[in-house]
This record gives sequence, structure tokens and C-alpha cells, in this order.
Amino acid sequence: MRAVDLIVRKRDGAELAPEEIDFLVRGFTSGEIPDYQFASLLMAIVLKGMTPDETARLTRAMIESGEVLDLAGVPGPLVDKHSTGGVGDKVSLVLAPLAAACGLRVPMMSGRSLGHTGGTLDKLESIPGYRTDLSPKRFRQALETVGFAMIGQSESVVPADRRMYALRDVTGTVESIPLITASIMSKKFAEGAQALLMDVKTGSGAFMKDRDRARALARSLVATGAGLGRRVAAMITDMDRPLGRAVGNFLEVRECIDCMNGAGPAEEVDLIVQQASRMLWLGGLAATPTEGEKLALQRLRDGSAWKVFLANVEFQGGNTDVLLHPDKGPAASVKKAVTSPSDGFVAGIDAYAAGIASVLIGVGRSRKEDRVLPSAGILLSRTVGEAVRRGEELCVVHGESAGAVDEACRLLAGAWRIAPGPVSPGPRLLEEVTRA
Amino acid sequence: MRAVDLIVRKRDGAELAPEEIDFLVRGFTSGEIPDYQFASLLMAIVLKGMTPDETARLTRAMIESGEVLDLAGVPGPLVDKHSTGGVGDKVSLVLAPLAAACGLRVPMMSGRSLGHTGGTLDKLESIPGYRTDLSPKRFRQALETVGFAMIGQSESVVPADRRMYALRDVTGTVESIPLITASIMSKKFAEGAQALLMDVKTGSGAFMKDRDRARALARSLVATGAGLGRRVAAMITDMDRPLGRAVGNFLEVRECIDCMNGAGPAEEVDLIVQQASRMLWLGGLAATPTEGEKLALQRLRDGSAWKVFLANVEFQGGNTDVLLHPDKGPAASVKKAVTSPSDGFVAGIDAYAAGIASVLIGVGRSRKEDRVLPSAGILLSRTVGEAVRRGEELCVVHGESAGAVDEACRLLAGAWRIAPGPVSPGPRLLEEVTRA
Repeated sequence: MRAVDLIVRKRDGAELAPEEIDFLVRGFTSGEIPDYQFASLLMAIVLKGMTPDETARLTRAMIESGEVLDLAGVPGPLVDKHSTGGVGDKVSLVLAPLAAACGLRVPMMSGRSLGHTGGTLDKLESIPGYRTDLSPKRFRQALETVGFAMIGQSESVVPADRRMYALRDVTGTVESIPLITASIMSKKFAEGAQALLMDVKTGSGAFMKDRDRARALARSLVATGAGLGRRVAAMITDMDRPLGRAVGNFLEVRECIDCMNGAGPAEEVDLIVQQASRMLWLGGLAATPTEGEKLALQRLRDGSAWKVFLANVEFQGGNTDVLLHPDKGPAASVKKAVTSPSDGFVAGIDAYAAGIASVLIGVGRSRKEDRVLPSAGILLSRTVGEAVRRGEELCVVHGESAGAVDEACRLLAGAWRIAPGPVSPGPRLLEEVTRA
Repeated sequence: MRAVDLIVRKRDGAELAPEEIDFLVRGFTSGEIPDYQFASLLMAIVLKGMTPDETARLTRAMIESGEVLDLAGVPGPLVDKHSTGGVGDKVSLVLAPLAAACGLRVPMMSGRSLGHTGGTLDKLESIPGYRTDLSPKRFRQALETVGFAMIGQSESVVPADRRMYALRDVTGTVESIPLITASIMSKKFAEGAQALLMDVKTGSGAFMKDRDRARALARSLVATGAGLGRRVAAMITDMDRPLGRAVGNFLEVRECIDCMNGAGPAEEVDLIVQQASRMLWLGGLAATPTEGEKLALQRLRDGSAWKVFLANVEFQGGNTDVLLHPDKGPAASVKKAVTSPSDGFVAGIDAYAAGIASVLIGVGRSRKEDRVLPSAGILLSRTVGEAVRRGEELCVVHGESAGAVDEACRLLAGAWRIAPGPVSPGPRLLEEVTRA
């Protein structure tokens, strides 16, 4: 088998055989197939696509490129959730303890901030002492005793993905439904999940700005799950406006604490309960999503999720005192408000602009080596549908540098659309894909 | 400017600006743009194409990547011909001296055998002593005194093409009309030609097996010439059957000697005269191709072309005694005939099979490091349209190894199609493209 012949076949639109895909991924991971051949193959895949069978095989080959976490024997269905990333998307921090409180085990391997979107690991690490680098043994222990664990991707899991992603980033081959699918799914199933709920974000604050592309990705994820013999369902949710009222690291943790104590933004809590219900259904703990919703709502309201969250923070080395008394946590030294230029109703908040503004003040990274600030962020004083008068606060920017905060404020001043008459915000959940 | 952004634009079907193409070719040639980025770009070009303007700019950027031979002051129009390669295609060896005998100067930079096709340099080097590595100074001298010269591509001319071709060869990006166009045209115009006749071969023995692809390449070559301000015309000629009766190195030289002495195969001589006439027309020495044909025929018949050829061989160090007495030249130690299984008429000879058979006996190379044999080859005893009886010779295979000759004979036995009734061979010249 020669790489060049397989490249030519993919270039000409052929479907590659399973053993051909294995050969390519193994060769690339070992270094026998050089980057320039794999780059050419990746571009051919971007432009010619892959069938569901090819995508599933690619995912499997990537999983087999490294270690697979062995979670056999952990009691309870292992179900994870993955979001394609948004602005203010802190769902995982509440969803994982809630799902665990309902009886699922959630082995969650998360990422850091990327582009204009935040990262679950960065949010967790804003809790003083919190460690996301658990050993496989401790990870398993956390699942057994707490019910969920949150870790970063280790070097030994899916090395093919790390190599492929680095190459895709510099060769214009990021935007490909099958490649994105295989990248997400390989990581999720290598970490030991049995079933997966995908939250595919669409809108200005998402990577998939376009609804049709989001739908295509959702379908690809579900079909690939089926090809791998795993239950996968996908929700397509709106990311045209930020989720909740907090964008930042510890600011989002505080909002999560509210969500677990009956004080979260209604729309956000609602989305979390919906996602938990689908996870319960995927894991077989609820016969229908509706049944799952009832259970999830109950465990959120009775404080079970909050207890599981505290147990997790304790297990992963975080300071729970800061969670019980959030005012002791990271706080910004510079705060500045953006005010409304007119009377009216908030018709929209550009999530992409809010994301970029948040990176400017240190919520995310412009370059890989940048440090994120736990205290920085944006608190939305007015969100979509709410009335506002001229001169009233639209948001408050928290940061550590007056210059950066000023710059973020200038950017945010253009992010609010104010309409003269009442506006009702559209639904977050746009569509679901539950079957291949 | 970042390479990745330009790759993305080409991937999405955009037209690259002239300075963007310059940036990419310069960066690749200098090594600043790594192979993996350029490979991804090449695949995007293969699948998304290039406009005529982009192709012309790519060609120009490639020419500017290295030295350009300075032939200013050489008297007479500098016109070259390039063939995309065929089986038995020895036209250059007669055409160059014929065109020179008519008053053109032909600065010909040729290649070696590639795949199933022979190479002009290999044919010339079957003449004992013949050197194809003339210095630029001697090359110019040959043009001034003899009228034509035949050399190989030097390292310093169009280095971008050498690097690009090596990468294309291993990344499945050879088959692209704009990339093929730029590769051919950059070499031809860097060697100093002012105008160019292209012989685009089509059929089983050509690289462009398909007539539509051959036409697309012909049009692209002519349009790119126009974009560079050079006169380029293209002939699309049939390569379903071998050209002439000889396939090999010195066997083809012998046939060329015949062509220049009134004894060549009529169809082959006819094609050479047609090509010479177009070159004369392109160079402005004939008002019309028809006028050019008259002049060319005259200079072929009166022995002028033959004299120029002998002068060239003398100049380039070859043994002219062998040309005057070809039986003193390379001769094979093993000869074996392939005979007809039935009575009838030759309806076709698979040029691809003949090409592969010729590589087996040493006419061409299976691997880059193989040596070619000057004596090896195939002489067609019966060609298309001729009658044959069962048991009569179809061809004789010349070689140096009985095993290889046997293998070639087995392959050739299946290459002749014998029809029960008379067959007339189709024309060699299928179409012409003379204007962008």
C-alpha cells in the first residue's frame, strides 16, 4: 500500500477501505507518512468529503493511535457531553454534577479556551487549587466515588488527533465535517464514554456560524456514533447571543454556583436540564427525555447536584470555601460599565464580539502561551428581551488592566442591538438529531 | 501575508492575486513555506483549478525562481517545440534540425524517459559520445553556429519546478491542467524560446488518455502563452498507436536518419513537416502554415536538415561515423519476433502496452536510478492498416536479456488487434489550437 495511491483515490472521490484508513492514520502517527503527504490527503478530504463509514473508521483508527482509558467495572452508565464551544457556555460545570447526581458517571475530558470561546479547564482552574491533570487511576477513582471528573487531554490519548490538528491548523484543512467529527469523537470515546450528547452551537458566537453546517455536523456525529456502536444524540443550540449573564472564568463559576442553588438564569438552567435529560435517556436511566427532565429538575432543586459538585472540587484539590463564599474568590481590580445609547429593548447581543472582548481582557488566549486571568470577564446587565433606558448599564467589564478594559468596552458598545419595541428572545434549542 | 490564508482562499475557490502567487512560489522555493503547506495548496489547486491569469502568473513566478538563459542577440527567431510524450515519438530529433535548416533557432531543453514513454535525451545519448550537458555558453554557440541545441534541464533553471514536481509526484497532485501548464511553460520560456509549438498527445500511449483533457491542456497552454505575451500554438495528435516503426533509443535514431534521407515512414515524415510548418509560422518565417509546409518539405528533401543534424551531433560530441554507418552503432544481442495468430489486417497497436514492453527491455526506466540500454527496442514489422498472414512477423524485439525480451514479447502478443477486413489508420493530427 502506498500513501500516494490512496491520496489519488480520495482526490478522485473514491471511498477508502477500512484497512487503507488504518494504514494512513498509523503511518502518519508513527511519522512514516510525512506531513506533506498527509496535508495533501487532508485537503482532498476537505474538498471531497468522507462517507459515514469512512468517518467512523477514521475515528476508530485515531482512538487506536494511543491509550484508551479503561473504565470497565465503573458502576453506572458512562455518558459524556461535548459542546462545540460558545461564549458564556458554562453548561458542563453544572451538567456533569447534575448527571452524576442522577446516577450517570461522567468521564469528561475538556479543552482550554480556543479563539473567541472559553474553555472548561480554564473555568475550573479559576477555583484556587483545582487540578485538571488527574492520573488515570485518580480519574477512575473520581468517577467511582464522586460520579464525575474533569480532566485535560493527556499526551498519550489520541496522539493522532494532536498531530492532525496541528497540521490542519496551518494547512487550511480545519473546516471539514468528517475531520471535525473524527477529532471530537475519537477523544470522547478514548476517554471511556459509552454514550455521548453533542451540543452543536450555531450563530455568531459559534465556530459553525451557519445552521446548515451545524446540522450537517450534528448528523455526522450521530451517524459516526452509530458506526462505532455508541449512542450519540445531538442538540443544535443557538449561540448568536452569549449564554447566561456571565462570560469569564470565575464569573462563570459564580453563575454555576447560582444555577445549582436555585438562582441561575432561567434560560440557562432550562438548557442544562434539557441536556441532562438527554444524557439520562442516552444512558438508559430514563425511558424518554421527558422522564429524564423530571429526574434532573428534582436533583437540581434538592441540592444533590450542588453536593456532587462540591465533592468533585474537593477531590480535584479545589478550595470549596471559595465556592461557599464566592466573594473570597478571584475578583477584578478594574471594573467599567458599558451603557445604553438609547431607550428600548435588547434585540440582540453579538456573541462573537463579546467573545473577542473577553479575550482582550484575559478570559481566553490570543496566543497559546498566554496566561488566562481567573478574575476577568463580562457581566451582562441587560440581555435579549429586556428593557433598557438611555444611560443604563448594558454590561460591566471586569479586568486587571484599564487599557484592556477600555478596549473591550469600546468593542462591546457596538455589540448590543437596541430595538424601539418589545422583543422576545428565540429558543436556545433549535433542533435535535437523535438517530443516524 | 500568511500561506495558510491563501490556502484557505484557494480551497474556497477564490482567484489568487498576482502578488499572492509570487509570495507562495518564492516562499516555497526558498523553503520558508514548508512542504506540508505547499502540498495542501497543490491539492486545492488540483481540485479547484486556476484561472488563465493565475496560471500565467504561476508560470512567470516559476520562471523567476531561477536563472533565465539569455539568448538576446542570437540571430533568427527562437522557436521551440514540446511534446507531452508518447511511444516512438522521435519527432524532435528530425524537427529541430529541419526547423534550423529553414532559418529558425531551436533552443531545446528535453527530458528523459518517464513512465512508459521514451525521452529525447536518452535517444540522443544512444549516439556514442553525444553530450546533453552543454554549458550556457556552448548552448548559445550551438544555436549561433549550428542553429539548434539539445540539452537537459540544469539545476539553476526553474528550481521551483523541480521542487514542485518532486512534491507533486508523492502527493497525488500531478494531474492538474494549470500545474502541468506552468511546469511545461516555465521551462520552455526560461530556456529562451520566444514562441512554442506544443504537441499534446492523446490516446492509450499518452499521459492524457482522454481527448477532452488533451484539449483542455492545449487551450490552457495557448492561453497561458498569451498571458505571458508569447506565441504558443498546440496540435493535438493521436498516440493510440506508436509513432513510426521504431520504439527504442538507437533504433529510433536510425529511423530519424531514414526520415532525413527520404526513407522515413510517410506518416511520421508528414507529422514532422506539419510541426515544422507551424514552428515557421509561429516564428514569422512563413505567412501561413501551408507556406511553411512547402519550405520545410524542400529543406527535408534537399538534405539540409540532415546536414544540420550532423553538425549538431559533431558539436555536441557525438560520433557522426555511426550516423553515416548505423550498423556500426549499438546493436542488440537478443532479437525475437512476435508473430500474428491469424490472417487479417492490423486494426490497432496498443501504444501503452508497447511502451511498457519497451521499459521492460531497457528502453526506459522503472526506477530513477535505472540505466537505459541504447540498443534495446521494438521494430514494428506490421503497423495499422497493413495486411498480415498467420505466422508472419508483427514486430521484432531487440534486447540484451533473453528473459526480458520473452516477457516483452508476451506483452506485445496482446497489443495487436487483427481485423478480418481492410482498415485505414485514422489521422495523426486530430485538432489544433492556435489562438487563446
